[in-house]
Amino acid sequence: MTFPNPPAELLEVAKIIEIELESCLIEQQLPPHLAEAARYAVMNGGKRVRPALTLLCCEAVGGSRRQAMHAALAVELVHCFSLVHDDLPSIDNDDLRRGKPTLHIKSGEAMAVLAGDLLLPVAFSQLIAEEYTCDQQATLTKLLAKATSDMVIGQVYDTLGGLPEHLEPLEQLEEIHRNKTGALICCSCQMGAVCGNVSSEAYEAISSFGSAIGLMFQIVDDLIDLHGNAALVGKATGKDAEAGKTTYPGTIGVEASKKSVRELQKQADNALQSLNFDTETLASFNLWMAHRTR
Amino acid sequence: MTFPNPPAELLEVAKIIEIELESCLIEQQLPPHLAEAARYAVMNGGKRVRPALTLLCCEAVGGSRRQAMHAALAVELVHCFSLVHDDLPSIDNDDLRRGKPTLHIKSGEAMAVLAGDLLLPVAFSQLIAEEYTCDQQATLTKLLAKATSDMVIGQVYDTLGGLPEHLEPLEQLEEIHRNKTGALICCSCQMGAVCGNVSSEAYEAISSFGSAIGLMFQIVDDLIDLHGNAALVGKATGKDAEAGKTTYPGTIGVEASKKSVRELQKQADNALQSLNFDTETLASFNLWMAHRTR
Repeated sequence: MTFPNPPAELLEVAKIIEIELESCLIEQQLPPHLAEAARYAVMNGGKRVRPALTLLCCEAVGGSRRQAMHAALAVELVHCFSLVHDDLPSIDNDDLRRGKPTLHIKSGEAMAVLAGDLLLPVAFSQLIAEEYTCDQQATLTKLLAKATSDMVIGQVYDTLGGLPEHLEPLEQLEEIHRNKTGALICCSCQMGAVCGNVSSEAYEAISSFGSAIGLMFQIVDDLIDLHGNAALVGKATGKDAEAGKTTYPGTIGVEASKKSVRELQKQADNALQSLNFDTETLASFNLWMAHRTR
Repeated sequence: MTFPNPPAELLEVAKIIEIELESCLIEQQLPPHLAEAARYAVMNGGKRVRPALTLLCCEAVGGSRRQAMHAALAVELVHCFSLVHDDLPSIDNDDLRRGKPTLHIKSGEAMAVLAGDLLLPVAFSQLIAEEYTCDQQATLTKLLAKATSDMVIGQVYDTLGGLPEHLEPLEQLEEIHRNKTGALICCSCQMGAVCGNVSSEAYEAISSFGSAIGLMFQIVDDLIDLHGNAALVGKATGKDAEAGKTTYPGTIGVEASKKSVRELQKQADNALQSLNFDTETLASFNLWMAHRTR
């Protein structure tokens, strides 16, 4: 069973997010070349998984999608910043991202570093939106700062090693994945819940959901890298093995990795069961995330 | 008249800031190699001009220095982030910073990009401190996000050009300087005032002070680069001319640049006159900043 494309409703959500991302960048009134680079970094054909999760998790705790939009933009801007910097020659040295030249290939390395840098303050400024109470602004800022910092730690582990030596290989791998990918995905869910004035009980459920799909997302990415088709995926595949990167299939094998995906999807589904509002879209999102092929 | 060293009281302030910066980094519980890189980026022998301004401007509007500490740390972390990224081979390609190898020379380019990245979320998280009201947290975040974004724009102008063509050469130069250096210095002052619960009238005065010394700081830097002694300054001098960078002395000459410094110092002093609290330390800071030789 595969779902090469996300469910139709998610494509709708992604479309709305794209429009908002684009206006957010225009509002910054950047000089033309920086504006172009920032736009290239952000309007990049991404699936918008993280901001969609923010909107849907807000809805899943009884809020409206609209309420969570500024938080969703912040999350996606942080994600786009990380892609631009991770692709740099000194880090992952990727020439291709979603089938197009990476920003440093297109606009040079200086512009890629600086346009990436720019996206971070723009992201944090989104959280000081009028529709959030002061407490929400503070909680959202803390969550996003921690996840951004965890993401950088994960990228450092992945690129430069330095993991705690007492950890077993699988624990080390989980430590990389949870930081590099899981933290921001989990934060996307939590931020949506915060925007929806979540109860502390439902917040636990959303955190458990976010934690499960965050790790699952990266294991599926590892599996796609191993078996994927570069034309479909839009970036080089088999690159992890070539770069000697530690992956789930490389560490525990393909079958055990697929089993982990199934377990994490189940864990995420169980977490959704405990919520009192409509979580159907979130459940179909979860199903797609477990079975996606790109 | 030259003041090669800052006034003694400012050295005291800088010492306190250093202690707080160091504990702030330890609190982040980073993996050892990233912690070392972040420490190297931050505990770098800097003069701590910006955070000192934050503390002193808080005092100058009737607050205590202590109240402004978290905002001061945030400002300095943003400054340190910008130094690490600006020094990168693809941007200013500097091997030396304050007499020591730059971070990418010491720890490699990947670590320099990532450790720089890390400092930004840590900076923004400082502003969500318990001692600030919700309104203060929001205002501080907005100010810091705008100044960080302006700083990146200034660095883009300085490295990659792209200034509005209708501007005269001196206006172009001021546009670079005000963004690249002035914005964060002015923001340091404004954030201090916000921490001190400033009245809107005094906020105007502090903004005028910050705007004047922000531009002045960079003109003095240009003059030091031209005439400085590399051993004393701790970085290569004459580098601006070599790199073909536009500077104040290069655009309007040395004497006219010195005259601008005097005028800006006077403008900053006038702004201080209108404040009702003790601004003596701030005035001596202003005097030193106009006459410093490194």
